[in-house]
Amino acid sequence: MKACILSIGDEILSGSTVDTNSNFIAQKLKSIGIAVSEIRTISDDMEVIKNALQQGFQKNDLIITTGGLGPTRDDKTKMAFVEFFGDELVFDEATFENLRQIFKQRNREHLLELNRPQAEIPKSAHIFLNDYGTAPSLLMQKDGKTAICLPGIPSEMKALMRTKIIPHLKNEHQLNFIISRTLTLVNIPESLLAEKIEAWELALPKNLSLSYLPIGNRIKLKITGLGENGREVKTQISDEVEKLHPLISENVISWNGESITEIFATAVFNSGLTLSTAESCTGGEIAKLITSIPGISPFFKGGIVAYETAKKVEILKVSQQTIDTYSVVSQQVAQEMSEGCRQIFDTDIAISTTGVAGPMSDEDGNEIGTVFYSIRVKDFEITKKLFLPHYERKDFMAFVAQKTLQDLVEILTLGKNR
Amino acid sequence: MKACILSIGDEILSGSTVDTNSNFIAQKLKSIGIAVSEIRTISDDMEVIKNALQQGFQKNDLIITTGGLGPTRDDKTKMAFVEFFGDELVFDEATFENLRQIFKQRNREHLLELNRPQAEIPKSAHIFLNDYGTAPSLLMQKDGKTAICLPGIPSEMKALMRTKIIPHLKNEHQLNFIISRTLTLVNIPESLLAEKIEAWELALPKNLSLSYLPIGNRIKLKITGLGENGREVKTQISDEVEKLHPLISENVISWNGESITEIFATAVFNSGLTLSTAESCTGGEIAKLITSIPGISPFFKGGIVAYETAKKVEILKVSQQTIDTYSVVSQQVAQEMSEGCRQIFDTDIAISTTGVAGPMSDEDGNEIGTVFYSIRVKDFEITKKLFLPHYERKDFMAFVAQKTLQDLVEILTLGKNR
Repeated sequence: MKACILSIGDEILSGSTVDTNSNFIAQKLKSIGIAVSEIRTISDDMEVIKNALQQGFQKNDLIITTGGLGPTRDDKTKMAFVEFFGDELVFDEATFENLRQIFKQRNREHLLELNRPQAEIPKSAHIFLNDYGTAPSLLMQKDGKTAICLPGIPSEMKALMRTKIIPHLKNEHQLNFIISRTLTLVNIPESLLAEKIEAWELALPKNLSLSYLPIGNRIKLKITGLGENGREVKTQISDEVEKLHPLISENVISWNGESITEIFATAVFNSGLTLSTAESCTGGEIAKLITSIPGISPFFKGGIVAYETAKKVEILKVSQQTIDTYSVVSQQVAQEMSEGCRQIFDTDIAISTTGVAGPMSDEDGNEIGTVFYSIRVKDFEITKKLFLPHYERKDFMAFVAQKTLQDLVEILTLGKNR
Repeated sequence: MKACILSIGDEILSGSTVDTNSNFIAQKLKSIGIAVSEIRTISDDMEVIKNALQQGFQKNDLIITTGGLGPTRDDKTKMAFVEFFGDELVFDEATFENLRQIFKQRNREHLLELNRPQAEIPKSAHIFLNDYGTAPSLLMQKDGKTAICLPGIPSEMKALMRTKIIPHLKNEHQLNFIISRTLTLVNIPESLLAEKIEAWELALPKNLSLSYLPIGNRIKLKITGLGENGREVKTQISDEVEKLHPLISENVISWNGESITEIFATAVFNSGLTLSTAESCTGGEIAKLITSIPGISPFFKGGIVAYETAKKVEILKVSQQTIDTYSVVSQQVAQEMSEGCRQIFDTDIAISTTGVAGPMSDEDGNEIGTVFYSIRVKDFEITKKLFLPHYERKDFMAFVAQKTLQDLVEILTLGKNR
């Protein structure tokens, strides 16, 4: 079964909003074995939406749309569905009752009548009521193909997908399994990796495919398999990963995991060590990445964002003399920050960063894009310097934060001497 | 001039990666007056890419692709360009020399030969050398239409767009201006807002359009104008915004600004007040949002991520008795956290959060999705409670962080009694 996702909204085309909805929908569809062949972001325009539905059905069995279901004039998705499926709107009592409940919860019952059009539903549509917003999700069919529209507000869309759409699709269709597994490698360039595993890659079974994805300075090697029996595909992939062991072991920091945060979580859980952070130029991003991990509480004690130089001295006990001698962006200050951090939080591991995110050089003339970070694991300490002048401020912060987590993973999994 | 963006990569279709490249490209194109009519994410497949180029040219003058330019077997974009434009590959000396420099900088000259295919370029292509990676950007033309391919690695793509592609396009084409301005409103539902400004909306000049975008519990009202004279369009929009003043002033927290971070920056810069953060359930996300603002250093002193309960007592001086009496997720603890924070960092403003992000309830039985946050502005203090059980952990953290910034903006711009 193949699907196409249509993201409807001018705010994405104009660059105001990043489309994260498609990513969530693709993940959820994949989890029940539906492959997404295409994601299209299109304008909130009746003809454009109808055309995209037409084209989407040519190559796919399922179309899922998000966005364009609000009560205002610029929202066109529902009417496009009505016209495309040759249907008409009828007032739906259950949907209106659901609206009433929502407005009641929000103490906004006086606005109910104004939202009455939200309860007008295409006659032939199957309705999934929205527990958190005014626009329900609708499923319509034509020539054995299915289209489902979802609201664009992420929290509403996600709740509907999780609790209603996915269970419905699972129930209605007998689906093929798509299983994938991602290995993460460091310290090897893509071209060399490709050469090392070329023979293995060419000998892969026909239903398995391979992709390389460089992120930061690591490479994600993803093996994807398709088959009627999920367990068999999983075993197939495991067998192939086994064959890779002797070829690439020394570069693998994770044999199964997607994001660096996920890989980091596994490494920390396995280590049983506690940790804390002392951030300057990353401004809380490392702490945020760590605390985004479910179940991290017993391991992560806390962090300090010592943004102003004086706070590095007052809170983290960095010596003023060190700052005067080496400047605040220096190996020495990074080291004293991680030491201070480890003492305050009494943890096994401490990570610190000090650098210049830009857009201006700092008062000591340190160049934009310079950062020193220090990682302590008990008695072991390592400081690294990065220079990333071509990164924008936010990307700089994100890259440095992920790099510190990655380095810590390397220390915990590949050993400290690397 | 209209453009289509093609994002090429199975990792986006499978939900592994969020496509942020398209957003950046759309923003940059918009800045020089090129409207994006469609964004498509497609598979790394030769026929699919060639088809998408074909279809893209039917309705657009420009196609920009990202991804699929790596040295490995699964990267197909360059060959799809060669076939689509009926060209052939030739070895390009300048590209190879650029590669040599890059490998030299990275002390990886032994890998140069392996990457030799990256210097094979379609004969008729205009080449934009990549200063930070192995794949150059290529521009090719057919029947007066232009296609440009860019690497998928965000830092490389962004540097190429900023320093080479945008200047080139600006130089080659005489372009229409697209100007937009975003107003941000709070405390008013979309349906009521639409009704309030209906007469104004219907009377808008033909070259101006309006869109509503609800985010969290605020609404972005975006006015977009198109015209040959940028200054005229700007004046037109300003005139229309003037007319809106008497209708919606009491709900507007920003008359010009996109993200809540941007709006927050303006409010803080105007206030001249200093600030600090004390976070528990948001885990550093508020500090991260604040420090992502260029020029925030003189205002933001720093923050504490007091994740473990004991650290709230030790560092932020929350009283153990308060925790025992009211539990750690309570109005009282939030208030003591913000007070402690303000004292440690000696700032005018302090923001604190304490809550349960899930996936488990806390030891005191506080429900998942419960959060208290406290905002202090000098002698003024307000505590609010949110309950967001349907949010996933990361979305919960992000929502709460943005909500605290939004509330602070409301206090600073609309007054403290709201």
